[in-house]
Amino acid sequence: MIGDKMSAAQRGDVRLRGFPDRSSVEAAMAWVDALATNRAYEAIDVEQASGRVLAAPIQVPADIPPFDCAATDGYALRSTDTIGASNYNPLLLFTMEATGVELAPNTAEVIAAGSRLPEGADAVLPFETGQSNQGKLEVLGAVAAGNGVLRRGQQAGAGSKIEISRPLRPHDLGLLAALGVSRLQVVRPPGVRLLVAGPKSGRHGVASYDANTPMLSRLVARDGGLPEAPGIMTGQKEALAQALAAAKADLILVCGRTGTGPDDEAPVALASAGELAIHGIAMRPGGSAGMGRVGSIPVFLLPGDPLACLYVYEFFAGRFLRRLAGRDARLPYPMREIELGRKIVSAVGLVDVCRVRLREGKAEPIGSLEHGGLASAARADGFVVVPAPSEGYAPGARVAAYMYEDLSDW
Amino acid sequence: MIGDKMSAAQRGDVRLRGFPDRSSVEAAMAWVDALATNRAYEAIDVEQASGRVLAAPIQVPADIPPFDCAATDGYALRSTDTIGASNYNPLLLFTMEATGVELAPNTAEVIAAGSRLPEGADAVLPFETGQSNQGKLEVLGAVAAGNGVLRRGQQAGAGSKIEISRPLRPHDLGLLAALGVSRLQVVRPPGVRLLVAGPKSGRHGVASYDANTPMLSRLVARDGGLPEAPGIMTGQKEALAQALAAAKADLILVCGRTGTGPDDEAPVALASAGELAIHGIAMRPGGSAGMGRVGSIPVFLLPGDPLACLYVYEFFAGRFLRRLAGRDARLPYPMREIELGRKIVSAVGLVDVCRVRLREGKAEPIGSLEHGGLASAARADGFVVVPAPSEGYAPGARVAAYMYEDLSDW
Repeated sequence: MIGDKMSAAQRGDVRLRGFPDRSSVEAAMAWVDALATNRAYEAIDVEQASGRVLAAPIQVPADIPPFDCAATDGYALRSTDTIGASNYNPLLLFTMEATGVELAPNTAEVIAAGSRLPEGADAVLPFETGQSNQGKLEVLGAVAAGNGVLRRGQQAGAGSKIEISRPLRPHDLGLLAALGVSRLQVVRPPGVRLLVAGPKSGRHGVASYDANTPMLSRLVARDGGLPEAPGIMTGQKEALAQALAAAKADLILVCGRTGTGPDDEAPVALASAGELAIHGIAMRPGGSAGMGRVGSIPVFLLPGDPLACLYVYEFFAGRFLRRLAGRDARLPYPMREIELGRKIVSAVGLVDVCRVRLREGKAEPIGSLEHGGLASAARADGFVVVPAPSEGYAPGARVAAYMYEDLSDW
Repeated sequence: MIGDKMSAAQRGDVRLRGFPDRSSVEAAMAWVDALATNRAYEAIDVEQASGRVLAAPIQVPADIPPFDCAATDGYALRSTDTIGASNYNPLLLFTMEATGVELAPNTAEVIAAGSRLPEGADAVLPFETGQSNQGKLEVLGAVAAGNGVLRRGQQAGAGSKIEISRPLRPHDLGLLAALGVSRLQVVRPPGVRLLVAGPKSGRHGVASYDANTPMLSRLVARDGGLPEAPGIMTGQKEALAQALAAAKADLILVCGRTGTGPDDEAPVALASAGELAIHGIAMRPGGSAGMGRVGSIPVFLLPGDPLACLYVYEFFAGRFLRRLAGRDARLPYPMREIELGRKIVSAVGLVDVCRVRLREGKAEPIGSLEHGGLASAARADGFVVVPAPSEGYAPGARVAAYMYEDLSDW
């Protein structure tokens, strides 16, 4: 536990002994948050900026629109010339081609949306509200001053600031392009080195496919990082310590060999290459996770079990990465209050991460809590996080669920 | 309106006249849904499959795990040898190196999570529940048969089907990799040709930046399509008709020149190159949108105003694309019921799309409903869709809002 009298490294090697105690999830998150401060920046083109985070607010270089203009297609005219007009009392105006000079009283010019309003005009009559015939316009309804007009700078005023403190969305790129902004100063994507420990020697030679590299690579990209995976390590303590010491990255993920087995050498390798700050976290799955640093580079030890790896990434390594990438640090899933259809049993003292699926609007836990594997995640619609003090929830309880996708009704 | 006695093309040219009527949003969506059937497939590597949609369920090629194995690090043993063990009544077992032959009674073998359970063993005692000393193990607690054990095929059984009918998530890639699947048959990303009509001639020569290409390119990519943008067209009717006729794509987006102004030639160009099925939709912004086809290729006419372009894409073109890409057709935003802090005024007969931002947990409309530009979208946290029959909502009303992002609490 952070702030404890003994560091995890001092407590020493857990191999063949087990964890004497575990850090709380909150303490591990606090460790992450204290470290994620080293943000860097770079300049990129607007077209490449989707999902990136602005370094600073953008100053609007010029008014949008750049002049008073038509908001709609129709006739530019003086609103006073339409007073009293209706279907039963059409008023007659002269129609003219656009002249570029001041609009005369009792005349109307055809204008397209976005075009500059002629001098003298103060409104635009939609084509639907007029009837044109041989140079004459029958006005079939009155318009007030300003109707159908967009004022200079109404959408964005020159010199004003556009503050967007989240990943840029497609329509933000449109806005920036509309402002004439072509280059942007944005947060540089943190480089993330993946070190995957090889299959355990005790697995009796059965081929074990690496599930974690493709999963972690995409999670890192989702959270704004640049994954670099040099392949599977042989997993010896010395090789891992050397790789840790040599890595150039903003963040290192070591995957596998974090537990209490005889060849779980990742924690001792980290302790020898740098500092093992936390080993063992009071959560399931993921209890054997660790974290520390080599020089100034944070290192996360992710369990080799893919389901545990997933949640330890989401809760801690991803949190660090999201912070460093300028994003919201929280779990990137919408949260929704939902009724439980079946009970969730949880252990007091551990944060349990329980996958659920929706059945007739209610959430049901699926698979083994700790050992369901990624198959349980693939079948899930989301997950429920049961806090450490809780024994779980009864059927009918309303709980907060993190939903993988949460679509709208249209 | 679809099924109406007259087609939009028969009703003819709306330029300088306005829309005699408009299709309902529902009818336009029905047109979209009826057309989006032509799905194609391709094979790709698992590593490239994030966000892609499987062509068919995956058959699990082999059991996961491939044998009964340890779910946790510890001692493999016979559960009956631990009956009655406790801190106050430790039982003694012999410990052995893994031998590969049947475990003798009253012995325990060190085992790492994921390793094959030796014959004779039926449980794994975590290291924490034992105390090892010079070939002897003090068992400090009883374990039941099956404790700490993962059965062969428990996570995924050989021959079973994994059905994932949504874009693949990072943990799905992990699962597929764990299954030893390296190539996947997935839905081919639809090719989307963007044809952007140039600035209107009436804009008096003021440079107008193209906001729509960067925005649409990203929206298309988000919805599983491959955008191809050949640059800005000169915008003449003949050139546009030729480009429409020549385009090779699954979907064509024409952006700009859809309205009632004198040079709004996109609808007539589409009518001359193919069929203009719908022109004018009862929504704001976006009322000048159109749709139709050239040969078998659907064509969406998106208004040049970027805010209208955004929503017409989201509601119709994006819907078609999402369907064709095998995704959920609905708007890809989480929907949440939320209290209005200020009233929304809407026109009866039009679907109004109203951007809102959250202030102290309540939604407030921002910007002009129709003419706020992308600046209003950039400032928004989401949007409210007001149905056509509604006049709007009073403050305090609870409305369904589509949220751009909807994060969790951790």
